[in-house]
Amino acid sequence: MRRPNHGGNLAWAAAVAGCPPSLIWDFSASINPLGPPKSAIAAIESQLNNLIAYPDPDYRQLRVSLSQLHPTLTPDWILPGNGSAELLTWACRELSELEETYLVTPAFSDYQRALKAFKAKVREYSLLDHKRGEPATLKREFHSLLSNLHSSDSGLLLNSPHNPTGQLLNREAILPLLEQFALVVVDEAFMDFLPPDQQQSLIPVVQDYPNLVILRSLTKFYSLPGLRLGYCVAHPDRTRRWQEWRDPWPVNCLAVAAATAVVLDTKFQQQTWDWLPGAKWQLSHGLARLPGLQPYPSAANFLLVHSEQPSSQLQKKLLKHSQCLIRDCLSFPELGDRYFRVAVRTTAENQRLLESLDAIL
Amino acid sequence: MRRPNHGGNLAWAAAVAGCPPSLIWDFSASINPLGPPKSAIAAIESQLNNLIAYPDPDYRQLRVSLSQLHPTLTPDWILPGNGSAELLTWACRELSELEETYLVTPAFSDYQRALKAFKAKVREYSLLDHKRGEPATLKREFHSLLSNLHSSDSGLLLNSPHNPTGQLLNREAILPLLEQFALVVVDEAFMDFLPPDQQQSLIPVVQDYPNLVILRSLTKFYSLPGLRLGYCVAHPDRTRRWQEWRDPWPVNCLAVAAATAVVLDTKFQQQTWDWLPGAKWQLSHGLARLPGLQPYPSAANFLLVHSEQPSSQLQKKLLKHSQCLIRDCLSFPELGDRYFRVAVRTTAENQRLLESLDAIL
Repeated sequence: MRRPNHGGNLAWAAAVAGCPPSLIWDFSASINPLGPPKSAIAAIESQLNNLIAYPDPDYRQLRVSLSQLHPTLTPDWILPGNGSAELLTWACRELSELEETYLVTPAFSDYQRALKAFKAKVREYSLLDHKRGEPATLKREFHSLLSNLHSSDSGLLLNSPHNPTGQLLNREAILPLLEQFALVVVDEAFMDFLPPDQQQSLIPVVQDYPNLVILRSLTKFYSLPGLRLGYCVAHPDRTRRWQEWRDPWPVNCLAVAAATAVVLDTKFQQQTWDWLPGAKWQLSHGLARLPGLQPYPSAANFLLVHSEQPSSQLQKKLLKHSQCLIRDCLSFPELGDRYFRVAVRTTAENQRLLESLDAIL
Repeated sequence: MRRPNHGGNLAWAAAVAGCPPSLIWDFSASINPLGPPKSAIAAIESQLNNLIAYPDPDYRQLRVSLSQLHPTLTPDWILPGNGSAELLTWACRELSELEETYLVTPAFSDYQRALKAFKAKVREYSLLDHKRGEPATLKREFHSLLSNLHSSDSGLLLNSPHNPTGQLLNREAILPLLEQFALVVVDEAFMDFLPPDQQQSLIPVVQDYPNLVILRSLTKFYSLPGLRLGYCVAHPDRTRRWQEWRDPWPVNCLAVAAATAVVLDTKFQQQTWDWLPGAKWQLSHGLARLPGLQPYPSAANFLLVHSEQPSSQLQKKLLKHSQCLIRDCLSFPELGDRYFRVAVRTTAENQRLLESLDAIL
């Protein structure tokens, strides 16, 4: 079985660990360990008798529900998708029509997949400042990106909070980019892990920028990656165009039902915002105390960790020792084998990971 | 609300009928009225605790399950999709790279959507022989298509059993086309409604033709259109290319579970094959006895009907009179407003439709 280039590939991990996939302790996929919320499962169960009907191709009710998360938007600014990965495909098709696209790296490998699918001309822009023999530091601004820009017919694909570093990009730092680039796609798949007053989402300004596309996921925060559900926020002309490209029913009825329920589940949202800071502190401090490991500060629900030992070796040792799956960073070529990424999970799970690492390091 | 150009748009129908969508008697979507099978619902319920995991991006187990339907195939010849409509998108992307694509018409409107999405050059080839003032008859061969062929770099998109006429194309009639066209895409979304010994599927010959793509649906026969599930059968080089284009997780975990269950549900399959001939006879003969209506012979689970009264008027009258939704044929421009399509449903439902039509004609 080939090594996965995404997190969450439990079939591969189970084969390495020699156990069923259900027994893997998955720190590789950055999924909220508190979910799925009961409200989502109840909503899915209530729709099992309605699978005989096609979804509404306009997804009108779903758009209205999602707009409750973003009160400044009308539903036609929101397009639901079969996971945000489906919407990334169409975003990258648009980017491919520009002269070139700047890709902020290290980048989630699926960005390259979608850009390559439509033969986009890609120019990489690294967020990392490398120093020989030391973990990289991270740039917090884009001056050099702007001064490097060759053409006004350029696109930009970036990600905030950034995966895998966990860095939150300041909205004010992105606004000047919106003036210079023909199209800016911002993947905010992990933004909702920040409480509303700490978010730096571009959604509040989207109505000022027809050249802005924001991708959001519902499956990470609400722990439903098996169900597939995301959405994008963009000018209605653009979302209509994507609807003409893609098939009429990308989002299944059970995902529609779950979304409609979870956007109203403020209790689950608050529980998540209450859980994350303490659990992240526990995991980060625990990792920092282990020999040869150095975690980065993170605004998201995962941590990037520099490791003196090759992370692909560490990953296999952990799987065999305690069925814990961490995310190697081989699919991020700028990082390579000296980094890994771990999701923040419950206190007990984090403790298991720390003890396992302690045992094998 | 705009008039739908697909069947099964219950939101639109409910607004016209003035009732909730759940009270519509839906003859517009050609879905098996015996389903969904209990095995599918049980399989879905058993997976509700596993939504926290991503689907396997290789869909290995699902491909193995689907290959049980086609014992001559190895799993790498099968690519599952988010409904066959998702796979149609990628098939049409390939067709768009050829000099031109012949589209057999009348054609399901989603073919034009997908061809247009990638700016394919389309040449229409009508199956209909029109005679002034009379319902059209149907061509049963492709001699004129072959003699019209301008270039060896041409594609062909066709559909068997054909929607909306219900005509089954003979496999032997298609084989010569495979020798002439660079790529042939055959949508067999309704083929499984025929018992195995009556099917004319191209799947048994696919290994001889790397230029052949067959699209299949699981949601019509197993009554799960809300779940989204289809697959294509094609050369492994092609299915691998499509996987590199599209997002890694197009099929949700609940659809995977349902598929794995229904392919083994031979009891449900046999029930469907036992139900359809009698119910189709009842509906067809009942329609033929009504004034101004003339149903066509059909190999599928739906009937095309010629109507002296404009079918869009008839559709609205039926919705208001008895909440029965038939499929107008306005999205098939070659047919226009003198034809409609109805799904074959249970004896009691067919009777309700016949009585309603009798009352308003």
